[in-house]
Amino acid sequence: MKVALAQLNPTIGDLQKNAQNILEVARQVSSQGVKLMLTPELSLCGYPPRDLLLNAHFIAEMEQTLQQLAIDLPPGLMVLIGLATPNLSHTITGSKPLFNSIALVMAGAVQNIFHKRLLPTYDVFDENRYFAAGSEPNHFTVDGIKIGLTVCEDLWNDEDFWGKRSYIVNPIAELADHNIDLSINLSASPFSVGKQRVREAMLKHAAIKYDRPVLYVNQVGANDDLIFDGCSLGFDRSGELVCRGNSFDRDLIIIEFDQIKQDLNLAKVQPLTESTDAEVWQALVLGVRDYIQKCGFQKVILGLSGGIDSALVAAIAAEAIGAENVLGVLMPSPYSSEHSVTDAIDLAANLGIKTETIPIGNLMQGFDLSLELLFTGTEFGLAEENIQSRIRGTLLMSMSNKFGYLLLSTGNKSEMAVGYCTLYGDMNGGLAVIADVPKMRVFSICNWLNREREIIPTNIITKPPSAELKPGQVDEDSLPPYEVLDAILEAIVCDRQSIEQLIDRGYDPQVIEKITKLVKRAEFKRRQAPPGLKITDRAFGTGWRMPIASK
Amino acid sequence: MKVALAQLNPTIGDLQKNAQNILEVARQVSSQGVKLMLTPELSLCGYPPRDLLLNAHFIAEMEQTLQQLAIDLPPGLMVLIGLATPNLSHTITGSKPLFNSIALVMAGAVQNIFHKRLLPTYDVFDENRYFAAGSEPNHFTVDGIKIGLTVCEDLWNDEDFWGKRSYIVNPIAELADHNIDLSINLSASPFSVGKQRVREAMLKHAAIKYDRPVLYVNQVGANDDLIFDGCSLGFDRSGELVCRGNSFDRDLIIIEFDQIKQDLNLAKVQPLTESTDAEVWQALVLGVRDYIQKCGFQKVILGLSGGIDSALVAAIAAEAIGAENVLGVLMPSPYSSEHSVTDAIDLAANLGIKTETIPIGNLMQGFDLSLELLFTGTEFGLAEENIQSRIRGTLLMSMSNKFGYLLLSTGNKSEMAVGYCTLYGDMNGGLAVIADVPKMRVFSICNWLNREREIIPTNIITKPPSAELKPGQVDEDSLPPYEVLDAILEAIVCDRQSIEQLIDRGYDPQVIEKITKLVKRAEFKRRQAPPGLKITDRAFGTGWRMPIASK
Repeated sequence: MKVALAQLNPTIGDLQKNAQNILEVARQVSSQGVKLMLTPELSLCGYPPRDLLLNAHFIAEMEQTLQQLAIDLPPGLMVLIGLATPNLSHTITGSKPLFNSIALVMAGAVQNIFHKRLLPTYDVFDENRYFAAGSEPNHFTVDGIKIGLTVCEDLWNDEDFWGKRSYIVNPIAELADHNIDLSINLSASPFSVGKQRVREAMLKHAAIKYDRPVLYVNQVGANDDLIFDGCSLGFDRSGELVCRGNSFDRDLIIIEFDQIKQDLNLAKVQPLTESTDAEVWQALVLGVRDYIQKCGFQKVILGLSGGIDSALVAAIAAEAIGAENVLGVLMPSPYSSEHSVTDAIDLAANLGIKTETIPIGNLMQGFDLSLELLFTGTEFGLAEENIQSRIRGTLLMSMSNKFGYLLLSTGNKSEMAVGYCTLYGDMNGGLAVIADVPKMRVFSICNWLNREREIIPTNIITKPPSAELKPGQVDEDSLPPYEVLDAILEAIVCDRQSIEQLIDRGYDPQVIEKITKLVKRAEFKRRQAPPGLKITDRAFGTGWRMPIASK
Repeated sequence: MKVALAQLNPTIGDLQKNAQNILEVARQVSSQGVKLMLTPELSLCGYPPRDLLLNAHFIAEMEQTLQQLAIDLPPGLMVLIGLATPNLSHTITGSKPLFNSIALVMAGAVQNIFHKRLLPTYDVFDENRYFAAGSEPNHFTVDGIKIGLTVCEDLWNDEDFWGKRSYIVNPIAELADHNIDLSINLSASPFSVGKQRVREAMLKHAAIKYDRPVLYVNQVGANDDLIFDGCSLGFDRSGELVCRGNSFDRDLIIIEFDQIKQDLNLAKVQPLTESTDAEVWQALVLGVRDYIQKCGFQKVILGLSGGIDSALVAAIAAEAIGAENVLGVLMPSPYSSEHSVTDAIDLAANLGIKTETIPIGNLMQGFDLSLELLFTGTEFGLAEENIQSRIRGTLLMSMSNKFGYLLLSTGNKSEMAVGYCTLYGDMNGGLAVIADVPKMRVFSICNWLNREREIIPTNIITKPPSAELKPGQVDEDSLPPYEVLDAILEAIVCDRQSIEQLIDRGYDPQVIEKITKLVKRAEFKRRQAPPGLKITDRAFGTGWRMPIASK
């Protein structure tokens, strides 16, 4: 029996377009003798639909779209489609009003509805906000083959693999008791660095443990802060990899389930991305491209400071939507070094993007003059530094407004963590491209980018990082070296370590205390940051929910 | 038996200070013969602690603080204290790692720990993210009186009262089966307009239904976007109100449980706030005061446009922290009407706040000049309008940075809904004071404020609202009248009605479609807005989780 894994890129809430995409792939595979087609979790509405799910009319429209799609699909093909469905007894049982469901569609009608059982409620996930958990193991039979069905998280609770339980039930263990022949998991599993390795180990473990082949179809594409990497998988019952889809791109895999040996045959196996730098690069390129397109923009604008952060963001944008659609703006001040301009111009030439230059000295003088009386007797400081950044932010937004270009912000995760960035200044933008990329990773991606030819001018990589908001300023005047800063931030932000634990690890107590305070104090800035593309297990964004007025 | 209801105002995460506040009240009531003292839900860490709960060291410190507090408390007094406690078996059972607990403390030690059973996961609540649900009815005995204990949401699932269930179990029904003598509910129930009426009806219903007196202690004070109104309550077994605490202020109620009649005696009953306008006013005053104080500021700054929104925010700030701590800044442009300046000056005089005036014409010219080449051949439009707003935002932030004043933003909910506000301009600020107040409510509060003497100059209330970003502009040029706009927004945002439902209600289909589109398109602005004080059942903020890149 031929099974198709449709690794789709839905747009959140665009029911018609998502249905159309499912239909096109279904027609294609139906003509190739495929019997069963798989689509990702919530493939009809895209994942995560978030509070759209609270609109009753959205749920009703989803149901209608499914019914029409069932009629339109090739009648002989069995298709699994993800959607939210009403929990009709919720007012009586007291559970949530929806299920995260999979519809089994064939012969012009919905034949069956299955419900996701484990609802993640951590990090960026809020599924308990919307969904009731399904209570039954999900399975169905096609051509005499008994298929066990799980949805994303349902597969992530094996205590042998994790060494602990995260949910009370374990759906795949229950399915094994039902003597299934093939295990299918439909997912919308967001990308983070290193996650594919975990998924593959976990799926391999499940295949071997239950002596059953496993197919896993993942959503691809970016939705706001979340990037889905696709990379769909199959393992045969001995735990051998039999298929792997593209990373960060749509894909369609057709794989044969051999009914005699009761196992999957080998299909195409795409290689994994060569390095973490390459993986993050591809993730961000997809993240930028999808945000631009799904928001309806064609072009982007960004400030080019001559520094490494804006250089990387410009390179990502050029790769995502073409250099001709990227405008870099140089806004030198009297404190800008000469190289800040020449480096930015060199970068633009390397990338082939257009630039505009607007010096901001006159505007700085204008603000100085306007504030002269009020600021008499005070020293040049943070207020004046921030004015420069806010002039630039205002110029960029005025061009964004005038020409309809999306503004990209360029701050990295290390800056966002300690607040080394100006709210309403360089933080301005519709999307914070590298907000989850620590500074050291910014360096290493830029070096990787230059592996064949110089894309990021070498001087941009080698010069000491500086905000250039006062003469001779470099980042290390006020921050520890980035190697140290990033290590401490990783411990505080991602690993949630205490000051005591960091001291035990040998870091300078004064440095730790300073960094901890900075992270806490910058919370009000992060709360007002644009969505930032998530590439780590703990990003500042929808999965970071810290109080501001607190101690 | 005397019971004390300690209506406390904790600071999130400030364990030492919160413990100290509990201790002070305990010493006071102990000397008055009180046997049992009640504090609100999570009284030790404040509600909501949000992702602080993910830090293991924070949980450990909370436990230590409780142990010390138990030692320090008067030994003969029984005190109920709210805190998060570890769920030690979570890796085996697969439930969440914490409980939302109540510690029963007496004689120098923790005598018992009870766990909250119903965990809200809707609107602003994320309790399933952190907590496992308690599985047992909570009760204990003091002086022969059997007390049933519930925590906040535990009381909100009576299907007789609500006509439906929201959770599977009903803790108060289970407690009734345990023959309790007195029902106690410890809460952190955020304020919204009209909610106290619902609470009182629900508690009265519970008292009568189970023929048991009920005591309810609520947190008071504001934490970021959430305002807690206190207003603690007691109902006797016949459903008569026997005590009501202050609204929007700390309070301490001592009430007698009469062991012979097995009922509560009448104690002090504070009157309810006279009107919705008064209630919202008090809520916002508390919200502003607490945000300022808990963030460690002394003074605030805001832009005074001469319009009604900034006038109301200035009045709230003056009431919250004293007029002498409020600085209003006038930033007239060539498009500003004469009355915009005189009205703002009149307002400042009425309030007794200081003002500064910085005309922005020169800065506007500076930006025009800087952008002249780029903008050649384009018409004056949104870009130019926004520059004015961003110049003002930059001036305000520079003063905020220079003098350490907190900037308050002044946009109302109607504007925030349709995006009639400038990101990085008038949206700038640490706190969005009236972001959840619809424009029509802004008018009615200002009229209410003027009930005895003119506080908001009459001309500010009566003139047509205008952003004054181009000559002769008024809001109704681009928006429907606010009566209509607010009604449609209420239906879309709060009641989640569809376009079809609104057409059925008789609204102009074109207007509805326009408003719906504006609300959708402004999502990217709202995502970057400062925390806004929540006063309705559905605010833009932590409880509004909409995708941006969607259809």
